[in-house]
Amino acid sequence: MGLFSKPIKTLDDLFVHTLQDIYYAENQITKALPKMIGKAADPQLKQAFQTHLTETQGQIKRLEQVFQMHGQEVKGVKCAAMDGIIEEAEEIMGDADDDEVRDAAMLAAAQAVEHYEITRYGTLIAYAQQLGRNDCASVLQQNLDEEKATDRKLTALAESKVNRKAA
Amino acid sequence: MGLFSKPIKTLDDLFVHTLQDIYYAENQITKALPKMIGKAADPQLKQAFQTHLTETQGQIKRLEQVFQMHGQEVKGVKCAAMDGIIEEAEEIMGDADDDEVRDAAMLAAAQAVEHYEITRYGTLIAYAQQLGRNDCASVLQQNLDEEKATDRKLTALAESKVNRKAA
Repeated sequence: MGLFSKPIKTLDDLFVHTLQDIYYAENQITKALPKMIGKAADPQLKQAFQTHLTETQGQIKRLEQVFQMHGQEVKGVKCAAMDGIIEEAEEIMGDADDDEVRDAAMLAAAQAVEHYEITRYGTLIAYAQQLGRNDCASVLQQNLDEEKATDRKLTALAESKVNRKAA
Repeated sequence: MGLFSKPIKTLDDLFVHTLQDIYYAENQITKALPKMIGKAADPQLKQAFQTHLTETQGQIKRLEQVFQMHGQEVKGVKCAAMDGIIEEAEEIMGDADDDEVRDAAMLAAAQAVEHYEITRYGTLIAYAQQLGRNDCASVLQQNLDEEKATDRKLTALAESKVNRKAA
């Protein structure tokens, strides 16, 4: 979060601020994923990143829908957490000397991204429900469900293949 | 991660690097939690943070045990992700103008911390198992179980009380 120009006085302010945070985060992911797709050696991992990029673009559209449903301007606020997660991912991609080990590291970095999104969507849904905005909660739930499914898919890919190849 | 002095060539290197990352992260949390305990208005939330601080100190001891079991020097590497999550938590604590709204924001920030730890412990356990270090995996599993329990406890506290008070 951060760079928020007005104080957060109500749960509604906090909801909007968290929405801006995840909007920024999802947009940063669409910039980071193409580099990960380019670097992935395993074709299944490359495909998983590609699918996640397409999904992320759909998730951004859903966030824009929630801003509009809630009568708010579509905008992001800098999210230091996601910037840090992506910074780590880029460093590890540079530090890893071996294709299989780099794949394992990138897969773990992608799971860190998923978990950040899972926690933020969980929070946003709880706020929306508390604010009586079950319509917004329901749209956000679709993003949460996709993030959880991606995380499970990455775990399965790590355990069945990517970590084995790296070992 | 970052500031890693040698290239990561093997899954073992990646395991040690990720261990150093979470060791740094857990230590940063022990510095951030006292401020959150001081700021929490709700006594149950304050208690939850206090309990988590005690747990985190135990988790750091377990990590030191894993370093030793694996014949590695106990050390951390700067983790930009956790720094970012904590930076966001501190900003939101400053931006929130109302005690109840600040509590809701701090609770969400604590859940972002938990999810970062959950993903890293999940990854570390998978690496340890792949490396044939089920002994290390078993110690790390205790940390993972605690983090998941804390996250569930925070979700329950948010939904039953803290978000309601903020609304």
